[in-house]
Amino acid sequence: MTDSIDNAPDNPSEVSPPKAVVSRLSLYLRELQHLVRDGIETISSTALGQRLGFSDAKVRKDLTNFGQFGYPGVGYRCEELIDEIKRILGTDRQWEVVLIGAGNLGRALLGYRGFGNQGFRIAAAFDIDESSVGKSIESIDVFRFKDLPDFIRSRKINLAILAVPADQAQTVADKLVAAGITGMLNFAPVTLTVPENVSVIGVDLAIELEQLSFAVVKKANNS
Amino acid sequence: MTDSIDNAPDNPSEVSPPKAVVSRLSLYLRELQHLVRDGIETISSTALGQRLGFSDAKVRKDLTNFGQFGYPGVGYRCEELIDEIKRILGTDRQWEVVLIGAGNLGRALLGYRGFGNQGFRIAAAFDIDESSVGKSIESIDVFRFKDLPDFIRSRKINLAILAVPADQAQTVADKLVAAGITGMLNFAPVTLTVPENVSVIGVDLAIELEQLSFAVVKKANNS
Repeated sequence: MTDSIDNAPDNPSEVSPPKAVVSRLSLYLRELQHLVRDGIETISSTALGQRLGFSDAKVRKDLTNFGQFGYPGVGYRCEELIDEIKRILGTDRQWEVVLIGAGNLGRALLGYRGFGNQGFRIAAAFDIDESSVGKSIESIDVFRFKDLPDFIRSRKINLAILAVPADQAQTVADKLVAAGITGMLNFAPVTLTVPENVSVIGVDLAIELEQLSFAVVKKANNS
Repeated sequence: MTDSIDNAPDNPSEVSPPKAVVSRLSLYLRELQHLVRDGIETISSTALGQRLGFSDAKVRKDLTNFGQFGYPGVGYRCEELIDEIKRILGTDRQWEVVLIGAGNLGRALLGYRGFGNQGFRIAAAFDIDESSVGKSIESIDVFRFKDLPDFIRSRKINLAILAVPADQAQTVADKLVAAGITGMLNFAPVTLTVPENVSVIGVDLAIELEQLSFAVVKKANNS
């Protein structure tokens, strides 16, 4: 399982930037989007770093992995840097995504506004439960899971969100791989085995609570 | 907003370990739990690192922040290291958590098995929607939001999960702070403002998709 947390391999021959750097690109992107929404056109690496708790050096070093984006005496042009980061992340295009599993979690994700804002559109949901099939949830159609391969091929879809029970996740993942999916966001608390050309990001929500527990205990001890 | 991603302040006077290290503790913990489940009693830093894509040096350096846990010629004793990491994360106790918002996302979280396994028990859910109040979902009672302060005080609850719409999140957060909550896991795609003694972890699911997009594009370019 790959994960959103800094788990960059320590292999010095690895040419791609560490995962932690790529993770921070998303944080920079979000902050820049807030700035533009607030009417701010340029920002220094110091100010951008301060808003996220990073040093200006870290901001510059992170971005230098991908090119030269700042202007002397100006800093970063927000709109321009947004476009550059989106290009790097591959979100300068619209991605169509399929959602597997139309249970409570699936329904919640169908209604999640955060995806559309960042260029991800859930094209359809798929389920094996006949009581969900044929319905439209948040204006997104729910189809039979067996119809997924044709749908993916005809729409040239690469990404899938798995919101299925843990004991079904691997079977579903195998079928997605066979159908041509190359990236999966997995919400089931289980590690998926996939071929090397397929990427999986696992969302382990208990990790977030553990990090919260650590922060709360530390603050309580310091006060 | 704090986040699960490596956003450790670069302040050299900061004495606590970087957030990225604390994040990796959760990954070590999960891996050790898998090992124990598979009947494995000890593991070297090299083998533990390999399973997660880290070097043995990184594993040792991370853990050294918190103490001395390995045995020469043996490695780590899995059960023992699990206990130590739980103590560090503050999950060696059971945490009761309240869930705010019993919509689709809230219902999905009420059924999420991953929390209980790690020591987090959702004690109750709260909503302002009268159609949910009084119901029991996944054997957890849904109460009126206005009854939350009494519940939190009587049960001495510190942690809350916010699964409310973005436009209600700050108002709800203010009320939780007033009632004594000191840690929040926020699923609303909005940055919350809270007093310094309160911790917030924001879950931005679009970030996970952005990281997936990056990984998929990179693999496609390399193939």
